[in-house]
Amino acid sequence: MARSVGRICKGFQRLGLLSKQTQLIPFTRVPVGTVRTIVTLPSFLFPQPRDFSLPNPSWGSEMTRMYEHYESQCEVETEGGQKQKGPWRRLPSYNRLLKYATVFPSGGVYLSKMIQSKARLFTRNIRNPGAAFEYVLFVNKEEQKCVCILQAGHLLEGPPGHVHGGAIATMIDTVTGTHATFLSGPVMTANLNINYRRPIPLGSTVLLESCLEKKEGRKTFITCRVTSTDGSKLHTETSALFLSITASHLLGG
Amino acid sequence: MARSVGRICKGFQRLGLLSKQTQLIPFTRVPVGTVRTIVTLPSFLFPQPRDFSLPNPSWGSEMTRMYEHYESQCEVETEGGQKQKGPWRRLPSYNRLLKYATVFPSGGVYLSKMIQSKARLFTRNIRNPGAAFEYVLFVNKEEQKCVCILQAGHLLEGPPGHVHGGAIATMIDTVTGTHATFLSGPVMTANLNINYRRPIPLGSTVLLESCLEKKEGRKTFITCRVTSTDGSKLHTETSALFLSITASHLLGG
Repeated sequence: MARSVGRICKGFQRLGLLSKQTQLIPFTRVPVGTVRTIVTLPSFLFPQPRDFSLPNPSWGSEMTRMYEHYESQCEVETEGGQKQKGPWRRLPSYNRLLKYATVFPSGGVYLSKMIQSKARLFTRNIRNPGAAFEYVLFVNKEEQKCVCILQAGHLLEGPPGHVHGGAIATMIDTVTGTHATFLSGPVMTANLNINYRRPIPLGSTVLLESCLEKKEGRKTFITCRVTSTDGSKLHTETSALFLSITASHLLGG
Repeated sequence: MARSVGRICKGFQRLGLLSKQTQLIPFTRVPVGTVRTIVTLPSFLFPQPRDFSLPNPSWGSEMTRMYEHYESQCEVETEGGQKQKGPWRRLPSYNRLLKYATVFPSGGVYLSKMIQSKARLFTRNIRNPGAAFEYVLFVNKEEQKCVCILQAGHLLEGPPGHVHGGAIATMIDTVTGTHATFLSGPVMTANLNINYRRPIPLGSTVLLESCLEKKEGRKTFITCRVTSTDGSKLHTETSALFLSITASHLLGG
């Protein structure tokens, strides 16, 4: 376990995600250790990766309406007419967390370096907009909350005409994991306990609301509800546990 | 809940999956009720869909070795040299459970009929062999077990170089859900409680073993372990609960 987590952690370390100044950043900006190094090469060599959390033509009216609801609270206007940060913050989303893949020297069937370089985040691996997961996350630091607006496309089918239980679990892991990382720094999922209450029709837009339950040492406990956007229908309820992974924990076994 | 499940159930009913003679069959063979009706139109009008659980060139040596291990136990030779059914049975796998999608009259943003016809099973929605989930399921009726051999491709990434927790949950839901259906007829996932013990490197082949724990009325309790193919490394442990969905339960509310 320690060796596997160690490899993952090295990836985080390369990008400085183990520092206290952790930010969710595109992979082309490469900080090293706790000191951020800005890449100063011409930008055409390192084009800005696509931020998948921005609206695209596949978004339906409900997805767009919910996005605008939270986006409008990311920057608010004071009485004096000045703009300032609001309670919510939109998190960008790319098709890979880090431009990095570990090389495994032995055991099992492992990917070639060429294929490793093609690795893509599971939730962003379909190129066709609207076909799979269309989602955007917002965090509220003061309320220790995270919300995700999800529009479920036609390639996520499980029961006929409805979203696969695994696709729902995938979004729950993504949202609670991002929230736990925001609260506690780099983490790994230790437990997901998901109660499925009501199936989600393909094509519908739902809301995932993630709340901090408590923090105990390395443990971050999160709860998450998936509901219709007006909150009237409960689709799933989840309790999740994440374990912090830090250099000191790894060194200490 | 009842209305949503009702729509799903109608899909099962159309294909006779609510009958006791339930089999996992391709969608082009359409049984009705408890009497199977064989489609007798020319086969070129209803070409046999691709069975994704058969070997393809993307399979690595470990995936192939494990497949041959179980496949060889699907048909065994008696002392007299005759062939007979073995303890295991391979389950075919298609890119859609049923050629059916519900039409939702109101609420939310729903898919057009054209897009509904494009719906694909979440675990089979990537066309490129080897890029995502390569898997095959075998069931053992006598031992009430189900195993799945999984080769995790480069489009399933979560933590750098490792499989997304949601992708693991997806396969667990698929395997335990298929097993529960095999044991109890049509079911819906009610709970998944997943403990993540050790991350799975992208590209590796792992084994999912699903066992019946108990059946109580409509409830089927299943446990599932994800391990390395030699069983030496435990990746996840899961307890799962499935609820049977039948016409009588639906009529009774």
